[in-house]
Amino acid sequence: MSKKLTSRAENYSKWYNELVVEADLAENSAVRGCMVIKPYGFAIWEKMQAELDRMFKETGHQNAYFPLFVPKSLFEAEEKNAEGFAKECAVVTHYRLQNDPDRPGKLRVDPKAKLEEELVVRPTSEAIIWNTYKGWIQSYRDLPLLINQWANVVRWEMRTRLFLRTAEFLWQEGHTAHATKKEAVAEAELMNNVYATFAENFMAIPVIQGLKTESERFAGADETYCIEALMQDGKALQAGTSHFLGQNFAKAFDVKFTSKEGKQDYVWATSWGVSTRLMGALIMTHSDDKGLVLPPNLAPNQVVIVPIYKNEEQLEAITDVVNGIMKDLRSKNISVKYDNRDTFRPGAKFAQHELQGVPLRIAIGARDLENGTVELARRDTLTKEVVSLDSLIEKVEGLMTEIQDTLFKKALDFRNAHITEVDTFEEFKEVLETKGGFISAHWDGTAETEDKIKELTKATIRCIPLDGKPENGACVFTGATSKQRVLFAKAY
Amino acid sequence: MSKKLTSRAENYSKWYNELVVEADLAENSAVRGCMVIKPYGFAIWEKMQAELDRMFKETGHQNAYFPLFVPKSLFEAEEKNAEGFAKECAVVTHYRLQNDPDRPGKLRVDPKAKLEEELVVRPTSEAIIWNTYKGWIQSYRDLPLLINQWANVVRWEMRTRLFLRTAEFLWQEGHTAHATKKEAVAEAELMNNVYATFAENFMAIPVIQGLKTESERFAGADETYCIEALMQDGKALQAGTSHFLGQNFAKAFDVKFTSKEGKQDYVWATSWGVSTRLMGALIMTHSDDKGLVLPPNLAPNQVVIVPIYKNEEQLEAITDVVNGIMKDLRSKNISVKYDNRDTFRPGAKFAQHELQGVPLRIAIGARDLENGTVELARRDTLTKEVVSLDSLIEKVEGLMTEIQDTLFKKALDFRNAHITEVDTFEEFKEVLETKGGFISAHWDGTAETEDKIKELTKATIRCIPLDGKPENGACVFTGATSKQRVLFAKAY
Repeated sequence: MSKKLTSRAENYSKWYNELVVEADLAENSAVRGCMVIKPYGFAIWEKMQAELDRMFKETGHQNAYFPLFVPKSLFEAEEKNAEGFAKECAVVTHYRLQNDPDRPGKLRVDPKAKLEEELVVRPTSEAIIWNTYKGWIQSYRDLPLLINQWANVVRWEMRTRLFLRTAEFLWQEGHTAHATKKEAVAEAELMNNVYATFAENFMAIPVIQGLKTESERFAGADETYCIEALMQDGKALQAGTSHFLGQNFAKAFDVKFTSKEGKQDYVWATSWGVSTRLMGALIMTHSDDKGLVLPPNLAPNQVVIVPIYKNEEQLEAITDVVNGIMKDLRSKNISVKYDNRDTFRPGAKFAQHELQGVPLRIAIGARDLENGTVELARRDTLTKEVVSLDSLIEKVEGLMTEIQDTLFKKALDFRNAHITEVDTFEEFKEVLETKGGFISAHWDGTAETEDKIKELTKATIRCIPLDGKPENGACVFTGATSKQRVLFAKAY
Repeated sequence: MSKKLTSRAENYSKWYNELVVEADLAENSAVRGCMVIKPYGFAIWEKMQAELDRMFKETGHQNAYFPLFVPKSLFEAEEKNAEGFAKECAVVTHYRLQNDPDRPGKLRVDPKAKLEEELVVRPTSEAIIWNTYKGWIQSYRDLPLLINQWANVVRWEMRTRLFLRTAEFLWQEGHTAHATKKEAVAEAELMNNVYATFAENFMAIPVIQGLKTESERFAGADETYCIEALMQDGKALQAGTSHFLGQNFAKAFDVKFTSKEGKQDYVWATSWGVSTRLMGALIMTHSDDKGLVLPPNLAPNQVVIVPIYKNEEQLEAITDVVNGIMKDLRSKNISVKYDNRDTFRPGAKFAQHELQGVPLRIAIGARDLENGTVELARRDTLTKEVVSLDSLIEKVEGLMTEIQDTLFKKALDFRNAHITEVDTFEEFKEVLETKGGFISAHWDGTAETEDKIKELTKATIRCIPLDGKPENGACVFTGATSKQRVLFAKAY
């Protein structure tokens, strides 16, 4: 614990990798590209899940569970989707192991237990779900069908990084069916909005809502909405996507419904998801060279209390006071942990809680007891102050909101300072190399230009902002006419 | 909806299969042996999860997440565990699909994308977890390690039934590490106790706590504790297990710790789990020929309100009253749904809610408004009564407890009436065939006798009850001496 981290300035990528491990969030496993999410990291994810789940239910969605495996023949049915994911599929081919005759005590795949049809470990569940929806949807009365699933998915990525890109990850995937195109589009927009609200209000991460260009769309979607965030190193991170799937999956799986008027038509669809990748965004947005910085709304422990004592008698007196403080804080729905471990000194505890991003630390010693005070330390500003016990609870309650707001504001100021409008390709390249961030530029709307810019600069179009103003201009690369600026950036 | 179910008396097994589908709990999927858990079924599972999760956390456990895949070399490491699960493993051998040159538009496994080492889809996670724990445990300070994971697992079962036995199922698996044998045994017992408490207080299912015989133990365990329930057809169902794993996995994965005294020793382990199988137990314990019967503590909707009206004006007046009732019920933490769908008649709604086991139904019509009353219908007793609006909330609150208690008592009476002490093998066979249930009999303690009885009667030893009294007797099959009765039954 508390090994000094590489600084962000020195090597941002190394800083991130070290931080994730040192703060006890996650680690690599024995399975290539798959991570172990450690209890502290998982506790943060659980808080995200609880909040998102509440928001999904409030917007009328129900949870369900669909199989982990997708038979190959179903996987193939929607061609674009299949093509998009085929290259990164883990495939189950056998259903039994047996003793290996050549290696005593070892096992091998039983050649006689080969599946007739291979099973793809779901990289996403449209295929298996739409094959199921075929049985659930007959009439307009069955619509809209608003379902979400919390699940693990597998995409065989070659270059992986903890939380940001892993072969297996945890996510939620919403899959909805609607009677009209208009309703489905509204649903895709609604859920992108839910993601934006969650990112801003809980993760304290400002996001830009936008549409993906055709080349960046989800395989099988007619339109992909997204929320894009900016990390401290000036790279963008796609934090969530919501897809309008048109009738593509309904057609691939023959899902029709009878309308009120008795007409048969294919169903309209959406899907939307966020994943444990959000953990990466959370870590990279707020943390500093001393470690993790967590917004109070997602911190497993919002407050930690460390007793400073020289003998058992002092500890007992402190513990009495602490018990009262904890009771009062909990009555205000503030989570608090009393770190009274006798195997660590206060300094080591301070370092650990700083590294793990606990928003507020309270230290109480014998002198504090005499004075009726405690020492409060904020993780976000690294400032300390002495506070009277009388006003402590009110003070802490206020700080929960203040820290949350401060983190959001700081990230917003940084993000806003890193959106640069450019009108020439020279400027484009220079801003990208020196300052990074989002580059707002005109684009001629062709995939060819998009590819060329990516090839030359590694920047991609992150999104066409939903709140973008129409503006006549010339493509930053080809000079062809353009009607709106789009946002380019290098991205995770 | 509301197709008449086969009766339990006619065909219990068919009744169960129909009920699961008709009550909208789950259905079979396109993947052999894998189920789709539908929103209504999943809502019940979510309530179970929430309660269990709370109980695990209250007993000091934290959640984490470990990989879905287990590399074959790790899977092999603990020999008994590997041997126990090898025959039902789904195995990933490839990580890519490609276009099939022989079938345009279709995909095939890319022969060049063969994994160097096959990956087993976890049938249980001891191997991958203990391989991870090796890095987490060095000293006594790292112990106890008390971790739980909510996950999907795959066991390639040949004969599957919704919830009861599926190739993929959802479960939680606790994996703990301890400094002493005594502590690990106490943990295994504690968690078995948690399961028993949950089954009895929330599922309203009485269970017998016991130890498994050696042949029925978890592969890799030194001792398996279990909770055994009895279904209405007289067959037993193992509802949860908690294993004392000794030092088997610590030795297989070389996990040692340094004690306070500076001595090195292998760590002691437990694991424990319950799964979506509990859904099967819940359904079979309480339900009747009209459909599902749910205990209030696990019902997604504890109360449903159905308006009975002839015109919009009546509906509006009823809705006004219903809004007040819902507000009051919710303030008492009672979940309530207002079924004001205009696409179904009251009779159809009644039938649906009966089929889906909503504990309490309130019907309100125009006459009720005049009289200041409602009609209350209990699902468990199928009785109705007219209740004054003034006393409604108190009445409903009381019924929530009463229904929960009634269901438990009914199941307990049935269970107790189906534990039969027998002293001869003739009697054993006769009771098994005519009455079913648990047979309490002396056994000589050998696997040979156990196997022979199983072969002859299909009954297995469900457990050696923890609260069994020492009693000298003669084995019901061999006549050899025995010191305690054990419980035999046919089982799911």
